[in-house]
Amino acid sequence: MTRYRLEILVKPRPGLLDPQGKAIHHSLNSLGWEGVQDVRVGKAMYVDLDAASESEALEAADAMCRKLLANPVTEDFEVSLVGALEGAGS
Amino acid sequence: MTRYRLEILVKPRPGLLDPQGKAIHHSLNSLGWEGVQDVRVGKAMYVDLDAASESEALEAADAMCRKLLANPVTEDFEVSLVGALEGAGS
Repeated sequence: MTRYRLEILVKPRPGLLDPQGKAIHHSLNSLGWEGVQDVRVGKAMYVDLDAASESEALEAADAMCRKLLANPVTEDFEVSLVGALEGAGS
Repeated sequence: MTRYRLEILVKPRPGLLDPQGKAIHHSLNSLGWEGVQDVRVGKAMYVDLDAASESEALEAADAMCRKLLANPVTEDFEVSLVGALEGAGS
């Protein structure tokens, strides 16, 4: 078993309303950043997971996204491996 | 002027409490992913910005994080360039 750190990015699908992004967009314009044209806000999750291999860790993260972490109707997700942390015993 | 897309990741500093991460951690364990050891949750923001150069775009994003997007006491941030989108006229 190795402990892997996975980065999971969940973002609103293109075209769907993103009120939080819109609020930040307006705030940035008000603060003087006139060049800002669009802002989208999603979640960045870091999961530390004990798994037998990189591919097992990535598959588990993919399943977690489909089952819990992302809303398949409104959000897209990306999973990537940040790195192996250390052996997790035995 | 070119339009750049920037990815900004804001995450809770190591050691600080992250109740949302803890809730997801427990949910994943309950759903059968016993190998999950830790979860941290932050924000992933995608900012489309008109700027004269890559370095100007990155500096602007850094300033946005310090002023609005991240809490410097509790959060760390990372800015990276996703790519240039298209010329933004003139």
